[in-house]
Amino acid sequence: MSDLQIISVPLGTRSYDIEVGFENLEHIGSFLNAFQPISTVVILTDDNVIRYDYAHRVAESIAETGIDVHLLSVAAGEQSKTIETASTLWETLLEEGIDRKSVLISVGGGVIGDLGGFIAATYARGIRFFQVPTTLLAQVDSSVGGKVGIDLPKAKNMVGAFLQPLGVLIDTKTLQTLPEDQYRSGLGEVVKYGVSLDAELFQFLEKNTEKINIRDSVILKQIVADCCRIKADIVVEDEFETTGRRVLLNYGHTFAHAFEIQSHFMLLHGLAVSIGAICAARLAVRMGFIDETFLQRQIRFHQNLGLPTEIPNSIDWRQTIELMRHDKKSEFGKLRFVLPTGIGSCRLIDHVDSSLLEQGL
Amino acid sequence: MSDLQIISVPLGTRSYDIEVGFENLEHIGSFLNAFQPISTVVILTDDNVIRYDYAHRVAESIAETGIDVHLLSVAAGEQSKTIETASTLWETLLEEGIDRKSVLISVGGGVIGDLGGFIAATYARGIRFFQVPTTLLAQVDSSVGGKVGIDLPKAKNMVGAFLQPLGVLIDTKTLQTLPEDQYRSGLGEVVKYGVSLDAELFQFLEKNTEKINIRDSVILKQIVADCCRIKADIVVEDEFETTGRRVLLNYGHTFAHAFEIQSHFMLLHGLAVSIGAICAARLAVRMGFIDETFLQRQIRFHQNLGLPTEIPNSIDWRQTIELMRHDKKSEFGKLRFVLPTGIGSCRLIDHVDSSLLEQGL
Repeated sequence: MSDLQIISVPLGTRSYDIEVGFENLEHIGSFLNAFQPISTVVILTDDNVIRYDYAHRVAESIAETGIDVHLLSVAAGEQSKTIETASTLWETLLEEGIDRKSVLISVGGGVIGDLGGFIAATYARGIRFFQVPTTLLAQVDSSVGGKVGIDLPKAKNMVGAFLQPLGVLIDTKTLQTLPEDQYRSGLGEVVKYGVSLDAELFQFLEKNTEKINIRDSVILKQIVADCCRIKADIVVEDEFETTGRRVLLNYGHTFAHAFEIQSHFMLLHGLAVSIGAICAARLAVRMGFIDETFLQRQIRFHQNLGLPTEIPNSIDWRQTIELMRHDKKSEFGKLRFVLPTGIGSCRLIDHVDSSLLEQGL
Repeated sequence: MSDLQIISVPLGTRSYDIEVGFENLEHIGSFLNAFQPISTVVILTDDNVIRYDYAHRVAESIAETGIDVHLLSVAAGEQSKTIETASTLWETLLEEGIDRKSVLISVGGGVIGDLGGFIAATYARGIRFFQVPTTLLAQVDSSVGGKVGIDLPKAKNMVGAFLQPLGVLIDTKTLQTLPEDQYRSGLGEVVKYGVSLDAELFQFLEKNTEKINIRDSVILKQIVADCCRIKADIVVEDEFETTGRRVLLNYGHTFAHAFEIQSHFMLLHGLAVSIGAICAARLAVRMGFIDETFLQRQIRFHQNLGLPTEIPNSIDWRQTIELMRHDKKSEFGKLRFVLPTGIGSCRLIDHVDSSLLEQGL
């Protein structure tokens, strides 16, 4: 077992810990034991993750403390983030006698974290929740911040809640089994933190691209812990997305959402963010916030990490602008972007003249 | 317009007001105006309540302040407290462009309050919520305390949240159009407050049974305000039902739930509570907490208000005991009751010997 990094997230009246390590999955039993009394633990995972035995190892570690454990698995992918799956899960929890003294643990990627969190937030008016994210995207982004929820047929994440977990346990060894495209998708968000929020992380990433590409465990653990720390610092200042601080996490995201919708979500989120970040950087050059040198450095940096920087041919530019005007984070059809202003710094720009975009970037 | 009673409910970091009056429905516009900016108001009501024009009057009062108002109506009754209705409402709100700056107002009884609150708690991870309860049961009980939710096919209120509203506006004039059985059902909860929590209210009710029976407006306004104040005082000490204080609101409820289940919810909640309260009082006599004189006084009091005191013939006593053992508020099959210990006082008794019940009460 390697040394661990513990990130403390102080929110409202209570604080929770994110533990980042390598081969630390079996810590879950003792981590959870601190929250006794616990009547039952329900582990939610998916049919893909379950093949790698992560959920079973989590279950065994908890069972060793004497707590009763139930394991539930749903189909992998966004198709499970629906009202229908939520409905089945609520009824299953009821049948299995899950009560207010139970804890629900999500073991998997962003879908499992969001779905499990929504069930925990609503079953019996709320039971305790714990996250064991096993994808890079979930480890650096979706497992931190308390956003949980499901999709409506016409809008992602439209039904949900803010629910802070009891804790988050991250074992970066799980990243070794991650398919290549999902690993790159996670890197898309990692790069976002570096470029828009943390110059030190940017330099660290730039210096270590080769090690990142071979998934070096020491480097990955450091990166994941840094990203969690950066996100937690922002979330603590804006838990319910009301002060505007959280919007700074959205560098590249206004473009990314428009690309994702047009690709019918076949383009992975983090890859869309990577392309969106370069679009935003081009816009920032056009508006005079950064110079061409920084843009070219960023493009090379993305490319060295195997991240896409060009808009796919299937994307229509006019439709992209239209979709961005109606993004749920925009107001009254205004074009609104988080733009880089230097390495590790960014600003929300509220009124972007659409003529700057119409000729393309 | 008569004089108003304002009950302030201080919860966590914010406080909200319950306004109790007579013919004060048109206050809603100015009450809500204090919470600007509001992009849109969605009024949720049911097909029964809408006939009395309450929802339209609420809508007009708000529209006069210049806020855009949408009116949604669902089928009346518990049949609407389902995942299916919630699902339809979420999609309707999305289609109508409801955003985080919107407010959802429930105008109706307990079902509309619970359903509307659940939608508000979950749509877009939570929008603001306001209550205009129009039944006696909702005015004295369900609109205070923040419990919102929907039913699962096999368990009522099993999916939900704790959501404190922006405010509650109660117009006791709406009680004039309430069907007789629903009025009595509300009185069942009113009586509960008097007997188990507030001696002064008990005496006031006992002295005014005739006026209560003819729905005297001055008396009703006083009673509703008193009940809200009693409940709010308890909820403030135990917002999330974790300290055990809230359990004291459940006098008569352990029996009542078992009766309701056996009647397939044909027995109205407050009437079941009335019978359950007498059962609990009989048990309290048997255990020596109160004397026979108090029991007889309570029975007469219930009867004078037209409330049932005897268990219907259709109820099976053995099954009642079984259901009570597995009530979601019981733990590990223990029999647990809130029992009266005198006028306006009660205690939670955790381990009741089932032999005390087996012979019937």
